[in-house]
Amino acid sequence: MGVSLEFEGRDIISIKDFSREEIDYVLKVAHAMEPIAAKGSDMLKGKILATLFFEPSTRTRLSFEAAMHKLGGSTIGFAEAEIASVKKGENLADTVRTVENYADVIAVRHPLEGAARLAAEFAKVPIINGGSGAEEHPTQALLDLYTIMKEKGKIDGLIIAFVGDLRYGRTVHSLAYALSLYNIELYLVSPESLKMRREVLQTIKEKIHVTEKTSFEKIIPIVDVLYVTRIQKERFPDPAEYAKVKGSYKIDLKTLSDAKHDLIILHPLPRVDEVTAEVDNTPFARYFQQVWNGIVVRMTLLALILGAVKE
Amino acid sequence: MGVSLEFEGRDIISIKDFSREEIDYVLKVAHAMEPIAAKGSDMLKGKILATLFFEPSTRTRLSFEAAMHKLGGSTIGFAEAEIASVKKGENLADTVRTVENYADVIAVRHPLEGAARLAAEFAKVPIINGGSGAEEHPTQALLDLYTIMKEKGKIDGLIIAFVGDLRYGRTVHSLAYALSLYNIELYLVSPESLKMRREVLQTIKEKIHVTEKTSFEKIIPIVDVLYVTRIQKERFPDPAEYAKVKGSYKIDLKTLSDAKHDLIILHPLPRVDEVTAEVDNTPFARYFQQVWNGIVVRMTLLALILGAVKE
Amino acid sequence: MGVSLEFEGRDIISIKDFSREEIDYVLKVAHAMEPIAAKGSDMLKGKILATLFFEPSTRTRLSFEAAMHKLGGSTIGFAEAEIASVKKGENLADTVRTVENYADVIAVRHPLEGAARLAAEFAKVPIINGGSGAEEHPTQALLDLYTIMKEKGKIDGLIIAFVGDLRYGRTVHSLAYALSLYNIELYLVSPESLKMRREVLQTIKEKIHVTEKTSFEKIIPIVDVLYVTRIQKERFPDPAEYAKVKGSYKIDLKTLSDAKHDLIILHPLPRVDEVTAEVDNTPFARYFQQVWNGIVVRMTLLALILGAVKE
Repeated sequence: MGVSLEFEGRDIISIKDFSREEIDYVLKVAHAMEPIAAKGSDMLKGKILATLFFEPSTRTRLSFEAAMHKLGGSTIGFAEAEIASVKKGENLADTVRTVENYADVIAVRHPLEGAARLAAEFAKVPIINGGSGAEEHPTQALLDLYTIMKEKGKIDGLIIAFVGDLRYGRTVHSLAYALSLYNIELYLVSPESLKMRREVLQTIKEKIHVTEKTSFEKIIPIVDVLYVTRIQKERFPDPAEYAKVKGSYKIDLKTLSDAKHDLIILHPLPRVDEVTAEVDNTPFARYFQQVWNGIVVRMTLLALILGAVKE
Repeated sequence: MGVSLEFEGRDIISIKDFSREEIDYVLKVAHAMEPIAAKGSDMLKGKILATLFFEPSTRTRLSFEAAMHKLGGSTIGFAEAEIASVKKGENLADTVRTVENYADVIAVRHPLEGAARLAAEFAKVPIINGGSGAEEHPTQALLDLYTIMKEKGKIDGLIIAFVGDLRYGRTVHSLAYALSLYNIELYLVSPESLKMRREVLQTIKEKIHVTEKTSFEKIIPIVDVLYVTRIQKERFPDPAEYAKVKGSYKIDLKTLSDAKHDLIILHPLPRVDEVTAEVDNTPFARYFQQVWNGIVVRMTLLALILGAVKE
Repeated sequence: MGVSLEFEGRDIISIKDFSREEIDYVLKVAHAMEPIAAKGSDMLKGKILATLFFEPSTRTRLSFEAAMHKLGGSTIGFAEAEIASVKKGENLADTVRTVENYADVIAVRHPLEGAARLAAEFAKVPIINGGSGAEEHPTQALLDLYTIMKEKGKIDGLIIAFVGDLRYGRTVHSLAYALSLYNIELYLVSPESLKMRREVLQTIKEKIHVTEKTSFEKIIPIVDVLYVTRIQKERFPDPAEYAKVKGSYKIDLKTLSDAKHDLIILHPLPRVDEVTAEVDNTPFARYFQQVWNGIVVRMTLLALILGAVKE
C-alpha cells in the first residue's frame, strides 16, 4: 500500500528509475520464481520477446531467450547491426515501431547512451534495456543484487568492493547506483586510469560511504562481497602499463588467504584471468551461480511487465 | 463453387500466379485471422517453418517468424549465405532437399530471379517466396492489398500513386501486377532514370489505366493511396543528381496540404527520409499499421498452405 | 540384461564410447521414434537445447534444432565464434559453465579436437558433440548406421565402400569406428594423398577386413553401400592434381551401370559434383533420406539423455 508497485507495461531502462521499494519487490518475486525457473511454465504462452542486439552479447541474449522459453513464450530477433535498415542510429525509432508489431516485449542492446530510452519513447510495447552506452545495464544490476541477497540473506550492512575497470564497465555503474539505495559500505579498487567515473561517484557518495583505492590487499580481510571486472588491454595505450596493471588486480588463492570465510566473489563474465581458475572450486566463487540468477531475474521482469505476475 | 480455392500444399512464388478470386479469398481469411494474431493460437502446433534468407532482411524474416509463433509453431533457419554449403546458386536444390526434412514449410529469400521457383520445383514441402530477384515479393503485395482493403473498405475504384524508385524496388513490381487485377487508376511517379520497368508497365497497361509522371504535386489532391518507396543513393552515378532527385520526391506536411482528407500513405519500409517524421503522427500515415498487417497476412498464408484453414 | 543401457544424463562425445549393444539400442529406439518425428510431440516440453556452434554448419545446427522442436522443446544458441567471450579456446570451460544455466542439454561444434570432451568435463548438463576436430562426429555416424539398417534391414554381412577424402573428413572416421563393431567388409577408395588416417585404419583393421584402393571401378559390382564424401580443392597444393583426382572419384550413371540392383549411395552432404545430379532420381540415391534419418536419430538421443525415453 502507499506506493504502487505496478509493473505491467513498464519499461526497464535504467536502474536509476527504481526506488528501493521497487527493487526489493523484484527481488521478492524473483525468489518465488526460482521453482518455475527450474521446471518451466506456460505463464507467457503465446507471447513473443524480440531481442534487438545492435551490439553482440551472446551471454545476455541467450539469458533473455532462455528466460522467455522457460515462461512458455517464443523469441525472435537479431544479434548484429550489419543490416541496412538498422545501421544508422536515426532509424532506431522506425525499427522499434516495426518490431512492436511482431512482439509483446522488446529487449534492446545498443552501443549508444540513451538508445533504450529513445526506443521506449516510440514503442507501444515495453522495452527492456539489455545494456546501452557506458552506464546502463539494469537487468545486470538487478541480478547482481539478487545474487547478493540470495547468498548473504541481506544487502544492508555489507562491505562491498568493486575491483578492476570501473571506468568503462557498464555493469559497475548500474550496480553502484543500485547499491547506493542500501545501507552499505563501498570500496572502489582500480588503477588510476580506470577509476570510477566522477559523475557516478558524486551521486553515490551523497548516499553511501565510498572509499577509492588502487590496491585491494588491505581490504580483503574485511569485505563481504568482491565484485571483479575485466581489465581490457585496449584501454591502455602502453602495453607495458597494461601488463603491470593486470598483474596487480588478479584474484587468486594467495590473495584470498586472509579473506572472510563467507566472502563471495561475483563477476559479470566473461573473464579473462582476473579471477584465476583455481578460485572456481572454492566456496568464494559465485559467478556461475550469478548466471543462473540472471535467468531468474529476467523471467521475473518479463512476467511482471507482461502482467503474468501482479501484486 | 466453380474455381477451386484449395491452398493446402501450395507454393507462394509469384503474385502473378494468383487470380483475383484467390487474392480476395486470402484477404477475407486475413480479416478473420486478426483476432488470432492479437491473442495467439495453437493452429500450427508441432509445425516448423524454415526461413532460408540468402539475402538479409530482418524485417521480412522477423515477420515470418512472428507469424509462425503466433500460430503456435516453431522456426529454424539462417539469415546469411556465407556458409560453404549455400554459397553457390547451383546448390540451392540440394539445400532445399535437405531442409524439407527439417521443416513443414520453407520461406526463401534470394537475390536471384527465379530462385524461389527453382526451390519449389525441388521441394516436397511448400515454398513461400520471401523476396527474390527484382520482381517477386508476393507476400508484400498481399499485405499491401490487405492494408488498402482494411483502410478503404475496397480496392476497386481507387486512385493509387506509386512514388520513388519504381525500377529496382521489387515491392512495386509485385504490387503493380496485383493491382492490375482490380479496377483502379494508377499513377507512377519517379525520376526518369528510375521509371517503372517496361515489361511490367506493358503488362499492367493492358488491364488498367496507368499514367507516368516525374512529379507528384498535381496528383496529390486526387489520390486515395500514396505508395512511397526509398530512392537509394547507390542508383545514381552522380551524387549531385541524387541530391536533386531526392529532394523532389520527399513527402512532408507541405506536400500533403491539399491532399484528400482520407488519403493513406503506405511504405514497404525501411525508409530514409522520403516520408518525413512529421507525417508519422498524421492520420495519413499507415506504414506502421502495414507492418502489423504483414503478420496477419503471413499467418493467413501459413495457415492456408499447411491446411489449418480450409475453404 | 547384463549391460546397463542407461542414457539419461549421458554425454555423447565419441562413437568410440559406444558398445555395439548401445548402438543397436539407439537404432531400435530411433525406429520407434519415426512416427513421433512425423507428427511431433510434447516429450521435451519445457526443455531447452543450446547449440554452441563455434564452427558454422547450417545443416547440423538446423537438424538439432528441428529435432528439439519436434519433441516440443525450445532452442537457443549461436552459430559463429566472432564474439569476444568465445573467441579463445581457453574460455570454452567458462562458456559451458555459463550456458549450462540456460539449457538442459548443449550441442557443441568446434574446430578443435577434444573440445566437446573438455566441455563435458565442465558441464553439469549433458553435452552432445556436433562435430569436433577431424575425428569425431558421433551423431553423424549413428544416423549413417541407422540409414543402413533402415534401408538394408541389417548391417552385418554387408560390403561397404567409402569413396573420396578419407583423410580430412570427420564423418568417415567416426563411421569407420562404428562399422568396425559389426561384421562387415570395408573398402577404402581414395587418392594416395587422401587415404584413411593410419591410426584409424590400424584400429579398425584389428576387427574387420579392410582393403584400400585408389580406384572404385572393380568393386562397384560387389558393394552394398557406397559412402561418398567430398574432395575439397583446398587439400591440393597443385590445382592440376586436384582436377585429375576429382574426375576419377565421380559417381555417375555410367559408373553405376554394373552396380548391384539394391546398392545404396550415402553422402554426408553438402556435395559438389562427386555424385552427379542424374543419380538423384535413381533408387540408389539415399542421401536425402539420410537427412531425415538425422532428425530421427538426434530426436532419439535428445529424448534418451533427457530421460524422456527409458529402457
